[in-house]
Amino acid sequence: MSNKLWSGRFTAATDALLDDFNSSIPFDQRLWPDDIAGSRAHARMLEHVGLLTTEELAAIEQGLDSIEADLTDGTLAVDPTAEDIHMFIEAELTRRIGEPGRKLHTGRSRNDQVAVDIRLYLRRMTSEVRTAIRSFIETLVEIAAANLRTIMPGFTHLQIAQPITLAHHFSAYAHMLERDWQRLGDAVDRMNYSPLGAGALATCTLPLDPARTAAELGFDGVCGNSLDAVSDRDFCVEICAALALLMTHLSRLSEELILWASTPFGFITPDDAWSTGSSMMPQKKNPDIPELVRGKSARVISNLNTLLVMLKGLPLAYNKDMQEDKEAIFEALDTVLLTLPTLQGFVVTMKINSERMRSVAESGLSNATDLAEYLVRRGLPFRQAHEQVGKLVYYALEQGKKLEELSLDEFRAQSSLVDDSVYAALKIENCVAARDLPGGPAPTAVETALRSLCERLDLSAKNL
Amino acid sequence: MSNKLWSGRFTAATDALLDDFNSSIPFDQRLWPDDIAGSRAHARMLEHVGLLTTEELAAIEQGLDSIEADLTDGTLAVDPTAEDIHMFIEAELTRRIGEPGRKLHTGRSRNDQVAVDIRLYLRRMTSEVRTAIRSFIETLVEIAAANLRTIMPGFTHLQIAQPITLAHHFSAYAHMLERDWQRLGDAVDRMNYSPLGAGALATCTLPLDPARTAAELGFDGVCGNSLDAVSDRDFCVEICAALALLMTHLSRLSEELILWASTPFGFITPDDAWSTGSSMMPQKKNPDIPELVRGKSARVISNLNTLLVMLKGLPLAYNKDMQEDKEAIFEALDTVLLTLPTLQGFVVTMKINSERMRSVAESGLSNATDLAEYLVRRGLPFRQAHEQVGKLVYYALEQGKKLEELSLDEFRAQSSLVDDSVYAALKIENCVAARDLPGGPAPTAVETALRSLCERLDLSAKNL
Amino acid sequence: MSNKLWSGRFTAATDALLDDFNSSIPFDQRLWPDDIAGSRAHARMLEHVGLLTTEELAAIEQGLDSIEADLTDGTLAVDPTAEDIHMFIEAELTRRIGEPGRKLHTGRSRNDQVAVDIRLYLRRMTSEVRTAIRSFIETLVEIAAANLRTIMPGFTHLQIAQPITLAHHFSAYAHMLERDWQRLGDAVDRMNYSPLGAGALATCTLPLDPARTAAELGFDGVCGNSLDAVSDRDFCVEICAALALLMTHLSRLSEELILWASTPFGFITPDDAWSTGSSMMPQKKNPDIPELVRGKSARVISNLNTLLVMLKGLPLAYNKDMQEDKEAIFEALDTVLLTLPTLQGFVVTMKINSERMRSVAESGLSNATDLAEYLVRRGLPFRQAHEQVGKLVYYALEQGKKLEELSLDEFRAQSSLVDDSVYAALKIENCVAARDLPGGPAPTAVETALRSLCERLDLSAKNL
Amino acid sequence: MSNKLWSGRFTAATDALLDDFNSSIPFDQRLWPDDIAGSRAHARMLEHVGLLTTEELAAIEQGLDSIEADLTDGTLAVDPTAEDIHMFIEAELTRRIGEPGRKLHTGRSRNDQVAVDIRLYLRRMTSEVRTAIRSFIETLVEIAAANLRTIMPGFTHLQIAQPITLAHHFSAYAHMLERDWQRLGDAVDRMNYSPLGAGALATCTLPLDPARTAAELGFDGVCGNSLDAVSDRDFCVEICAALALLMTHLSRLSEELILWASTPFGFITPDDAWSTGSSMMPQKKNPDIPELVRGKSARVISNLNTLLVMLKGLPLAYNKDMQEDKEAIFEALDTVLLTLPTLQGFVVTMKINSERMRSVAESGLSNATDLAEYLVRRGLPFRQAHEQVGKLVYYALEQGKKLEELSLDEFRAQSSLVDDSVYAALKIENCVAARDLPGGPAPTAVETALRSLCERLDLSAKNL
Repeated sequence: MSNKLWSGRFTAATDALLDDFNSSIPFDQRLWPDDIAGSRAHARMLEHVGLLTTEELAAIEQGLDSIEADLTDGTLAVDPTAEDIHMFIEAELTRRIGEPGRKLHTGRSRNDQVAVDIRLYLRRMTSEVRTAIRSFIETLVEIAAANLRTIMPGFTHLQIAQPITLAHHFSAYAHMLERDWQRLGDAVDRMNYSPLGAGALATCTLPLDPARTAAELGFDGVCGNSLDAVSDRDFCVEICAALALLMTHLSRLSEELILWASTPFGFITPDDAWSTGSSMMPQKKNPDIPELVRGKSARVISNLNTLLVMLKGLPLAYNKDMQEDKEAIFEALDTVLLTLPTLQGFVVTMKINSERMRSVAESGLSNATDLAEYLVRRGLPFRQAHEQVGKLVYYALEQGKKLEELSLDEFRAQSSLVDDSVYAALKIENCVAARDLPGGPAPTAVETALRSLCERLDLSAKNL
Repeated sequence: MSNKLWSGRFTAATDALLDDFNSSIPFDQRLWPDDIAGSRAHARMLEHVGLLTTEELAAIEQGLDSIEADLTDGTLAVDPTAEDIHMFIEAELTRRIGEPGRKLHTGRSRNDQVAVDIRLYLRRMTSEVRTAIRSFIETLVEIAAANLRTIMPGFTHLQIAQPITLAHHFSAYAHMLERDWQRLGDAVDRMNYSPLGAGALATCTLPLDPARTAAELGFDGVCGNSLDAVSDRDFCVEICAALALLMTHLSRLSEELILWASTPFGFITPDDAWSTGSSMMPQKKNPDIPELVRGKSARVISNLNTLLVMLKGLPLAYNKDMQEDKEAIFEALDTVLLTLPTLQGFVVTMKINSERMRSVAESGLSNATDLAEYLVRRGLPFRQAHEQVGKLVYYALEQGKKLEELSLDEFRAQSSLVDDSVYAALKIENCVAARDLPGGPAPTAVETALRSLCERLDLSAKNL
Repeated sequence: MSNKLWSGRFTAATDALLDDFNSSIPFDQRLWPDDIAGSRAHARMLEHVGLLTTEELAAIEQGLDSIEADLTDGTLAVDPTAEDIHMFIEAELTRRIGEPGRKLHTGRSRNDQVAVDIRLYLRRMTSEVRTAIRSFIETLVEIAAANLRTIMPGFTHLQIAQPITLAHHFSAYAHMLERDWQRLGDAVDRMNYSPLGAGALATCTLPLDPARTAAELGFDGVCGNSLDAVSDRDFCVEICAALALLMTHLSRLSEELILWASTPFGFITPDDAWSTGSSMMPQKKNPDIPELVRGKSARVISNLNTLLVMLKGLPLAYNKDMQEDKEAIFEALDTVLLTLPTLQGFVVTMKINSERMRSVAESGLSNATDLAEYLVRRGLPFRQAHEQVGKLVYYALEQGKKLEELSLDEFRAQSSLVDDSVYAALKIENCVAARDLPGGPAPTAVETALRSLCERLDLSAKNL
Repeated sequence: MSNKLWSGRFTAATDALLDDFNSSIPFDQRLWPDDIAGSRAHARMLEHVGLLTTEELAAIEQGLDSIEADLTDGTLAVDPTAEDIHMFIEAELTRRIGEPGRKLHTGRSRNDQVAVDIRLYLRRMTSEVRTAIRSFIETLVEIAAANLRTIMPGFTHLQIAQPITLAHHFSAYAHMLERDWQRLGDAVDRMNYSPLGAGALATCTLPLDPARTAAELGFDGVCGNSLDAVSDRDFCVEICAALALLMTHLSRLSEELILWASTPFGFITPDDAWSTGSSMMPQKKNPDIPELVRGKSARVISNLNTLLVMLKGLPLAYNKDMQEDKEAIFEALDTVLLTLPTLQGFVVTMKINSERMRSVAESGLSNATDLAEYLVRRGLPFRQAHEQVGKLVYYALEQGKKLEELSLDEFRAQSSLVDDSVYAALKIENCVAARDLPGGPAPTAVETALRSLCERLDLSAKNL
């Protein structure tokens, strides 16, 4: 007959195919530290309310301690045939300490147990992700600090638009990542309520003290509804949505790194130690890392989709479909936690070819807007300025010249407002430096923005 | 030749197919109130910094006012052949007031203009969604208040688990929706920074005052990076993620309403005015509304997917792909804003068959856990209690009896701890009332939880 | 320095983080049988065109044979630190046979090698899936054959619509699955062209004979374009789309099984060996299997999304993003290959409660359409018939009667066309038997449809 | 009271919110030609089996003809307050011809009616898509025919890999699109069975002749199961999957066009009539069309997701959720039908800068593989050849030279197998011409491949 802990009413052992299909231990075993923490708090509460004796509690705590130690140092291996990590630990506890082990599950169901374990685990992992984000931002800020005056072309539609700096460009990503960091913080705050005590779905008739377990486990309170407590996976969705957006940001950066490493751009040279070669073409050096980041963003976007689709249309309360939450959110977390330092390694070590960046920034008539604004400062309505410069652009393209290579006569043939001062206005350093509005590319503006960001994130900003 | 405002450098008019493909006016025309508000603030700032004279500003303001009035009362129709709503309004302004109209776009690009318009629009719409959510919660609370003692079966795995109440059940949804309400609030707070001044991507060389426009438009500050300001669509993703989760919650409720309206359940009877019939089968009355809600959740989940997939792999800064943000987020908002009151109408008018609910709650041996907890209170370790009750369950099923129909002898054949008091413990009202832990189904517990929720949402909770 | 086979031009070993991030061996090792098959065919072709001597070929073949044998029996373990399975096998070959091993990669790139390996693997696996689908259909047909006259309610909108039979219901799924089986066949046919010879992207200058390798490996020809050959992952998308639709079908069936196993329905009783219990509630028996199938469909749908999103926007030819194809399609295949026999096991062993099915089929006025058609046969236009029956339905509901419980007078108060023969028309067996149009629920019609399906699939249909 | 055709049993009119939420007429009105075609065939069959008189049929046919004519020329406008297009046409018919109109719906339900309408519509539209694909391929072939010798760099990982030609590159897309064309054909074949006669879900008791309607409407047969006939939306999924893959192909091409139009690449110059400008930057010319194609691919991928997610977990047979199929598949079709000719217009008119392409093809040591193969032809095992060339590549990069600029001594310092003939092997035209394996870039190979493709698609290939 079955050896399952719930098999009292059953007359046949479960089929092997069902066991396989049903098993969550290959992926939920990573929850063991959280399961032990949850059980410890639960046991202490049980003792506090008189459902365990002091001796029973001591036995349980000592048993959980020893299991924890043995799992940590590898003395104890998780049994791959166990139904799940929760049943494994409880069974192991009873094996070690006997009778009191059978009392641990008093006033608890796997439903609230799983719910508390995932919340604890996600709280831990989200904190790791946030640390990795801060570290990534730190790298971006350091590179920016060293490149406040490294001129590069700013693109829209991948067409050369206006000159900016590498610092300005990386500051954009630092600001995106700051929002990711915030968003994960909000998600954790919203999740940080304890489901322990909710039982299977309807709490229980024993005199538990859920506020006590909540406090001991660092939660901000107890879930306001027990059905919701066990059937809510909002936090998986909200964290995964934040991770998907983070990966989307990293994918955008990766697209740029791939473009920049391509011969026609030539803005960066990836480090040999962070690139790969070709099995057939001896000259190849490939930016595999940003390519994989771009590819892996698809996966995390789809993990989010999995979670929402899985939940859609499920009646209350717990349904087994919800076991599928774990692999989706775990994969998203694993992917992000591997991606951040790897892409950071690529970015830190790549060589920045600033001469090439600058030379492309000077092409493409990237200072045409400066000329229009020059005319506006001299009183021309913007729409006319735009039109006159449009014609000068057409003329310059025809002549194969840059704007700053036009003679004063050529300028004045189109607009009498132009005088000698136009050449200073068209100089690329000036184009950048003059854009010193908040958020702009001027070195002073970028420096200010980054200092303020570092303050919000409590980063040292040491090179700024 | 082309009549586009940007056509100075072009030698040919655009092709009709391109105009069609490119056109955003069928969907972005709804932004007109936001576009006018943004232009008004921009113009005032331009006057403040001396780029417009007081007279020019007056002309522009009067022109915008008249356009606003004419669009509001339908005197002015949006031209479907215009490139987009921004160009339409600017062209109409110039048509009305001449020269000063050509100065309005000074120091502004469509990129920051579009970015500010969407933020203003989403701020407005998100506020409407939050109002609709509060109203939906109010309905749930009112129904709950009237059904604190309406016993129904709680399900897990769609198997009868334990008796709860309808109030407890609806309270679960109220708590889910509260999180949706919060999440949308967080998203708006994070979005509420002004991109005006960012220009095309790199601000501009004119002495603008972005803080002034930000304040006038009710933003909390200016975006910290101009590249990010024009290429960021995080807020669309974050709002859409919150809407997708909201629709998932409504889809779960809908699944239940469909089940409940089905003959074998029979828990509710939809109102005739909120149901439909069949073209072929005369007896049919169909719960179309919750079915459509369940179906429409797929659409909003996919809108979120669209936004993330569209952004993935885009280099900085603005790319035309980003025009695709609008239909996705607009459709999600429209769907939610139609769904909430419609489903609310269905829920308010449906007839609740409480006798049927109660009778199902009493079946399925739903008080087996109470029996186990009864034994625990008498000192039996939970695992043994679970096992003994499992055997009693098996016995009762064999006998075709409910647990409360077993004789004391039958109970004691399995467990000597049972005495006469067991019958009170198995009475369904007691099973519910005894679960009075925080978040539990006991009337007192549900009432407390709902009062606290109403306080957080500033709802009256008048019937509680 | 690096030990990579492509490291000639590199001056530094790769970083450990890159190696980790880049590694595909945890998931691509399952391709080893295909990689060896591809290498064997490639080597034979090289010998045929004179790029290998007969002795070199013999050495290579013997080396590959021994590696194959050792991997099969576990003597040789895949090195988890190898870059990928292709490099692992080539390195192992060279370790075993020396010099000739270094010639194997002549005229080949990992790009065409990977492309051929996946195609071979997917051909194998798709064939396994198709076999499992046929087996599932066989089960459905067998159950149908035994239940040609097992009356159950047909639902639309989950409202009782018309009486059908269990055979008719399962025949619907058999027909869906037949399309899945066909679709996978079409996908394999379209994929079955050999990319070998395409090299990295542009074939090669050596006198290879791609038609020879194609034929030896059972392909229908050589890919028509070498860029396409290495950058095409259409077949992954097409197979995954077919698998996602298959899972959607199984998810629909699972939804029904879950409903049917629920107490209010009570149409089936899952077998103890194919169900699970609750850790807290002793009476529970949960249909975990169909719940997990329903949940896992979300995953396969998202695998499809991953593939499309990953490919979207990739320039030609191979990009590293495409390494992400494998886990997505492998997970989809693994899920389907585990799901089909497990759900089949559940379906085969569940107890069908035909009395309960029939009793529900008789409720809900499910024969109202028969009454309308009865009136049509007597000459009433359908719309009037529908309306008259609608009124009789309303009357019957008011009276708490079934239609067949109305007296002739009651009928005739609404419609003078009714006479005694109406009672036969309303008898549930007759309602079913009279629907003998092609595809209908009448036992004869279902039998004919299933026979024809079995013929198309070459199934024995032994019980029909 | 309600004016709905199914309202016999209802006591209240439907609520306005329900009518709004439920209404499908804004999107299903496009089905009117199919609805009329289906009704005409149904009526003829009814007459054939004696359920309509010849006169009634004549009246119905004449009524349908007049409605068709009036809808075609705009005399009759679809009533936006009608429940759906099916009810609108039936009501209009009855308004025009009276009594016989009420008999049209005999033996038919909206469920099979909708199912047949969508199939007819999708058959029409898919045929239009296939025509547009063929036309796009024709354009690609024409450009290829004119550029068989236009050398360009082939990329992998966006790194210069080997020289190819523009013809070879466009041939890759022609082959992808051919598969799209095939896939849509397979989908239509699989869909082409008639659901008419299935009724609401269970056929009907009247003596219909479904084979007759099937034949008249050009179907290959009748659906094998009536439940499946009304609840099957596989064809929407399968067609949408094919469209999503098609859009993914077009998105890949678009990514390349955007890159090619970017200044650092400079491979193409978009035509003025197929580009747009900037509202702020006078010099900008933006490739909006491929950007939008890339963006719109996200939408079609998500339409596919919508369909699968909507269907997932639905019990048989028809559920109202399925009304959501239409907007998803319609939007996918509309998007594709607008995208194909627009992108084609962009491609046909863009200027190809072949000098620039060639010059980039000669950079990046793109002939390194030719050198390795040169050594292989002289007897060196490939792995050693790869390694020696790797070192020569490193040396050449250090010297700032191309491979063909190395002296014979420099070559021979690394490999004694090199002699004077190496310079011919490294000449870029030879590198291309020598890759004449099937599918390769050599002009002869590309020409052969394209001729064969044109034959399969019955295209003229006139310039080849």
